[in-house]
Amino acid sequence: MSDIKKVVLAYSGGLDTSVIVRWLQDTYQCEVVTFTADIGQGEEVEPARKKAEALGVKEIYIDDLKEEFVRDFVFPMFRANTIYEGEYLLGTSIARPLIAKRLIEITNETGADAISHGATGKGNDQVRFELGAYALKPGIQVIAPWREWDLTSRETLMAYCETHNIPVDYASNKKKSPYSMDANLLHISYEGGILEDPWAEAEEDMWRWSVSPENAPDQPTYMELTYRGGDIVAIDGKIMSPATVLAYLNKVGGDNGIGRLDIVENRYVGMKSRGCYETPGGTIMMRAHRAIESITLDREVAHLKDSLMPKYAELVYNGYWWAPERHMLQTAINESQQYVNGEVQLKLYKGNVIVVGRKSEQSLFDESIATFEDDAGAYNQQDAEGFIKLNALRMRIAADKGRSSL
Amino acid sequence: MSDIKKVVLAYSGGLDTSVIVRWLQDTYQCEVVTFTADIGQGEEVEPARKKAEALGVKEIYIDDLKEEFVRDFVFPMFRANTIYEGEYLLGTSIARPLIAKRLIEITNETGADAISHGATGKGNDQVRFELGAYALKPGIQVIAPWREWDLTSRETLMAYCETHNIPVDYASNKKKSPYSMDANLLHISYEGGILEDPWAEAEEDMWRWSVSPENAPDQPTYMELTYRGGDIVAIDGKIMSPATVLAYLNKVGGDNGIGRLDIVENRYVGMKSRGCYETPGGTIMMRAHRAIESITLDREVAHLKDSLMPKYAELVYNGYWWAPERHMLQTAINESQQYVNGEVQLKLYKGNVIVVGRKSEQSLFDESIATFEDDAGAYNQQDAEGFIKLNALRMRIAADKGRSSL
Amino acid sequence: MSDIKKVVLAYSGGLDTSVIVRWLQDTYQCEVVTFTADIGQGEEVEPARKKAEALGVKEIYIDDLKEEFVRDFVFPMFRANTIYEGEYLLGTSIARPLIAKRLIEITNETGADAISHGATGKGNDQVRFELGAYALKPGIQVIAPWREWDLTSRETLMAYCETHNIPVDYASNKKKSPYSMDANLLHISYEGGILEDPWAEAEEDMWRWSVSPENAPDQPTYMELTYRGGDIVAIDGKIMSPATVLAYLNKVGGDNGIGRLDIVENRYVGMKSRGCYETPGGTIMMRAHRAIESITLDREVAHLKDSLMPKYAELVYNGYWWAPERHMLQTAINESQQYVNGEVQLKLYKGNVIVVGRKSEQSLFDESIATFEDDAGAYNQQDAEGFIKLNALRMRIAADKGRSSL
Amino acid sequence: MSDIKKVVLAYSGGLDTSVIVRWLQDTYQCEVVTFTADIGQGEEVEPARKKAEALGVKEIYIDDLKEEFVRDFVFPMFRANTIYEGEYLLGTSIARPLIAKRLIEITNETGADAISHGATGKGNDQVRFELGAYALKPGIQVIAPWREWDLTSRETLMAYCETHNIPVDYASNKKKSPYSMDANLLHISYEGGILEDPWAEAEEDMWRWSVSPENAPDQPTYMELTYRGGDIVAIDGKIMSPATVLAYLNKVGGDNGIGRLDIVENRYVGMKSRGCYETPGGTIMMRAHRAIESITLDREVAHLKDSLMPKYAELVYNGYWWAPERHMLQTAINESQQYVNGEVQLKLYKGNVIVVGRKSEQSLFDESIATFEDDAGAYNQQDAEGFIKLNALRMRIAADKGRSSL
Repeated sequence: MSDIKKVVLAYSGGLDTSVIVRWLQDTYQCEVVTFTADIGQGEEVEPARKKAEALGVKEIYIDDLKEEFVRDFVFPMFRANTIYEGEYLLGTSIARPLIAKRLIEITNETGADAISHGATGKGNDQVRFELGAYALKPGIQVIAPWREWDLTSRETLMAYCETHNIPVDYASNKKKSPYSMDANLLHISYEGGILEDPWAEAEEDMWRWSVSPENAPDQPTYMELTYRGGDIVAIDGKIMSPATVLAYLNKVGGDNGIGRLDIVENRYVGMKSRGCYETPGGTIMMRAHRAIESITLDREVAHLKDSLMPKYAELVYNGYWWAPERHMLQTAINESQQYVNGEVQLKLYKGNVIVVGRKSEQSLFDESIATFEDDAGAYNQQDAEGFIKLNALRMRIAADKGRSSL
Repeated sequence: MSDIKKVVLAYSGGLDTSVIVRWLQDTYQCEVVTFTADIGQGEEVEPARKKAEALGVKEIYIDDLKEEFVRDFVFPMFRANTIYEGEYLLGTSIARPLIAKRLIEITNETGADAISHGATGKGNDQVRFELGAYALKPGIQVIAPWREWDLTSRETLMAYCETHNIPVDYASNKKKSPYSMDANLLHISYEGGILEDPWAEAEEDMWRWSVSPENAPDQPTYMELTYRGGDIVAIDGKIMSPATVLAYLNKVGGDNGIGRLDIVENRYVGMKSRGCYETPGGTIMMRAHRAIESITLDREVAHLKDSLMPKYAELVYNGYWWAPERHMLQTAINESQQYVNGEVQLKLYKGNVIVVGRKSEQSLFDESIATFEDDAGAYNQQDAEGFIKLNALRMRIAADKGRSSL
Repeated sequence: MSDIKKVVLAYSGGLDTSVIVRWLQDTYQCEVVTFTADIGQGEEVEPARKKAEALGVKEIYIDDLKEEFVRDFVFPMFRANTIYEGEYLLGTSIARPLIAKRLIEITNETGADAISHGATGKGNDQVRFELGAYALKPGIQVIAPWREWDLTSRETLMAYCETHNIPVDYASNKKKSPYSMDANLLHISYEGGILEDPWAEAEEDMWRWSVSPENAPDQPTYMELTYRGGDIVAIDGKIMSPATVLAYLNKVGGDNGIGRLDIVENRYVGMKSRGCYETPGGTIMMRAHRAIESITLDREVAHLKDSLMPKYAELVYNGYWWAPERHMLQTAINESQQYVNGEVQLKLYKGNVIVVGRKSEQSLFDESIATFEDDAGAYNQQDAEGFIKLNALRMRIAADKGRSSL
Repeated sequence: MSDIKKVVLAYSGGLDTSVIVRWLQDTYQCEVVTFTADIGQGEEVEPARKKAEALGVKEIYIDDLKEEFVRDFVFPMFRANTIYEGEYLLGTSIARPLIAKRLIEITNETGADAISHGATGKGNDQVRFELGAYALKPGIQVIAPWREWDLTSRETLMAYCETHNIPVDYASNKKKSPYSMDANLLHISYEGGILEDPWAEAEEDMWRWSVSPENAPDQPTYMELTYRGGDIVAIDGKIMSPATVLAYLNKVGGDNGIGRLDIVENRYVGMKSRGCYETPGGTIMMRAHRAIESITLDREVAHLKDSLMPKYAELVYNGYWWAPERHMLQTAINESQQYVNGEVQLKLYKGNVIVVGRKSEQSLFDESIATFEDDAGAYNQQDAEGFIKLNALRMRIAADKGRSSL
């Protein structure tokens, strides 16, 4: 353990990572650099500075990564209509590669030889952090205290705090919640507590970002989103930066009871876990992106995207953002978005995201052909006969040869 | 045209197919057999008998296919969590292969040499009917009047009615709606009219099966679904047949404003079209099936299913239900459902289908492993290090060799 | 038919397309522009000029497209290791989109309003020509004489020649062979004749481009291929243009009995057909490209490519080269090739293409890790335990819950 | 380590696993049960009995698993035309799940609490053995000596032998080869030695099962294979059991210089490795199975199989034979084989497997349709126009709207 001189820690300012600072200093006799990022978790990051200082940390990084997070991670992911296991919008997963990247950058800047994080050995986040770190700096060392130390219960952790003079009020915030939570500009998640019983309904007071559909306004909210290249660039005609877009959609979505999710998911490490999520803005974006694609994407491009999406979602969930196969898929997805421009009209109402209109100068919807009225020869119905006959040919031959299709 | 002696027509009893009866008799000088099915469209089918008789039809088939429809078509499709283009639950598509099958059966029973239907040359339904028919009886002849005749406007059609003494009140039902509609136990669809402008919001009075979320009750409805082998067998503890299940879910779903959809979709014949759908029961089933699978399916089986689903959906949408590749996929899907047993607790509220609990005797959710509390050694966190290291190895080697992962 | 003023015909100079020239002039009373391309079919194209002139053609295009063919079509396809139905290297398919593109270009240059070709209504080539043409010029008209005229037997065709003064010696070349043949720089194909019985062995004197393995030299030929970005840029150290590479490989491959293939394939129009192919250079390229990728591609990129390949092959076979989904896939494939640089050493011997060595400055093969000898800690075998344990976890849980894995 | 009482070891009778017997006895103070299987590796298995007895083993299992191996593992895998990374026929991979299954069965019979094997911590085989074992008996303990002990060089191993009185002539067989080898009825593999340089050509005297193409007979060998349900049931009209089929094909294939392969592959544990393989019978089966499928499989079933194959191959390679997703895929693959009956005529010559004919009573090849001659109306060429027009429609609309297809 003596070969580690300096370690960069993903530091939230909370109790657990504060304990880690001290534990790293003690166990590895090394210098700790803290890195705290504002990725839209909704808590002040600046207070982390004083806490780190109090723990004797000399190099303290506090960054606002919100724009980079949405522009380079959230938006590219939404271009693929990414959903994990039919439900999950990957709110936690997508933030991890950014943290990993920044950890490595700081490692390079400070001459550190290791990184550390507060993720447990049971979850996906350790994988996401570490796969990213190894991909970006193959010789990096990783210290995952939760896999190493013996502070495995709340009691031993508290005892450690007392012994090492770590103020317990660091824990105060978390104490209010019986859940393990994670938040960034895309979502907030809840795990643990009564959620460990998949049959138990989540309690209303667990949810923090959205009102319930019951408590949402009785009047719907209409909203127009403008897309360029598959990304939202304006809302109701007002041009906004990526992070502003997502923050705004979170606000309006949360106010309208949108984006709650309660699922059992399959972790990469092999177990099933129950999680609850609030993703107001993401839920709106998913629906709206499908809508703008519905008029601007070629059918076969859309279907190809749909067939690739489960793989892409798996890569993001499992922590392979920085892997070459994710880059390869992203290249294809990005290429598909060149014409995804236009407007989507939405109606938000008590948990519902309702698409009511979509238009685009690049629209492939052709009213003159699609019409039920006289199409003036734009489409020759006769063509359908040959189309059907040849598509049926292989089946007819099979039936002729005595095979049953039933 | 003289070689056709008898044709079996998919007959709704409405104006269009009544005109087709007469047109077939006139044009082909052949006998027409009508076939009218109750697949849950919500209209009486028995009145079709008199109408057919009035048109001189001697062989009249009127069948109740609701149970077969749900048991052998809807339920198998939902086992795959089938969604076309991310949104559409395939309500129209899934009814067509059953009609095709029954048309061919009647053809065999009556010694007919052709089938006919009222689908236009622009849509998907002609393809679905005809691919099914050719697969099941390769020598069958198909007459698609809309692709052949010159009654291409409402005016010429009305003129034909007058000339041929077809009572115009046949048209009365349809006249009330400016939309082209189709209904069965799974859904009702709307196309045409103002919907031909994708930017125009659908009018509230178009929707027939559901109240709007705004008009749904202020109190949520809780409901417990019981699954066996991936299919719902009981609701709130009461055992029900497949068609009863779906009818019940339609009722409760529709009452709670659930299942409306407004999309632009890609037709198999190559154009985009706007469609609105009400699928109350199907929307509930989709969500609930995912939920019961979430605790009973192995992760990789679930992901494999997700990767196959777009292909399966495409097959159903395009009319390949009776094709061997659909059978091949179905075999795999069915095999995956052997352990999909258990209960799902739902909360329905103003358009929202909220999963609040799921349990199963075949559950793979293991609380002793997943817990955030002490797991008494059920899971060894140390294992994660090797897991991550080897999964990272290829990326580390690449980075070592100078490749950038950014 | 009167609205067509000028038609551009893909003209080989052979009997069939010469008849088509006259038939178009007669039937459509239109001007015919001929287009003859050298894509490496191994026959002089210049003689087509006199023949066209004799038929009264005023605008005659004769182009050498060999370099464009290999650079922009063959090479990009081989980057994907493209094989149709496990066997076929798509030699005919890949030439068609180039012909289609050039036809449309000439249409634009000459102000023509239609194109025409000599492909029959049963094959894939009509589809490939016409899909390309429609994609590149949506308003183009297409005349496919074989689908229209009544010259459906050799006799009626000959009679037409006599009536219209078309010299029958045009047919002389073809007459020598009982097979329908097609050739370009990638391959030569044979169909028809005794091949219509899939049980009948092809006759030795059918094959034109290669000696039989039996007649190939008793000494092997060694050869070194140099790759840059997935394409061959040099052979045995000598830099060559794409067409030169392929011509050279055809020569050496053919001399060594390489590249014969005898298959039954599934046509896009729905029937099975027997085809024999000689693809000497392509067979070598396929093997060698796999070899250079084996040391330069990341594992998951390679597997992703393999999973996309069948779809890509289907697109090329079916004629969708100019479709947006092919572009989307190509983008991903091209991105994957950036590090596919290096050398492959081959041994050619009596039909065998044997890879005997591969090296690259971008190699991901790491001898220090892969070695069976002491690796000095480059790889920690302990890591495997955790890797296996977590990969097994889901299966262990399932077995614990009583599921059988047998 | 004291909790292990009895361990079942996969015992080859060679030096390494003999050392393991003694090491297990010493290290774990436990009883060792040896299991030696004849899976066609071409060495006597009975001598393992005396060696085990000499090491004090009381429970000795020696099984002939050849028929089970081919019938339940090799044949099902070949139904999928399984190839890993475009080249490798998975000869080693497919034997491991059988060994794992038998190890667990013996564990159950003998009341053992652990299994052990001689695979290193760098390879795929440890994964395949252990994933299988965990899937079949979740509580099993696994001892992988190569990951635990310090006998990491040949010298320390030899020293251990001397100290523990293990006769060094056990090593004699292996000593003759500088390669790490593995063999079963499907193949023999070579790794290590000079192969660790991917640029070095394998030496001729390495190969054991086949003559070189150069040394194969100058006369071809013709052979007729009979398929039922996708498996070979007779050769040249003689009915044979699965293992007899494969042994026979190995003999004839090896005699004709067939089945050598030299590749760099990607291991599941993350590294690339060079391997040489001889798979004479498998190489023949692969080609022949494609041939019989070419006339008996529906096109879309064949393409679906091709699209699933890379995933299936990955599962087999990575050791997931006993995983539920492999079962799910196998179900689909097996379903596809019901009509794969008939005969394939092959010509074997100096490394070449040439398909010269295929026939079947279930053939879907329809000469009356495919013919270049007059088809008497079996196929209506007119149908192709509509087929093409509608398939082109989406591209025409896009081009009409100004999108470029180039």
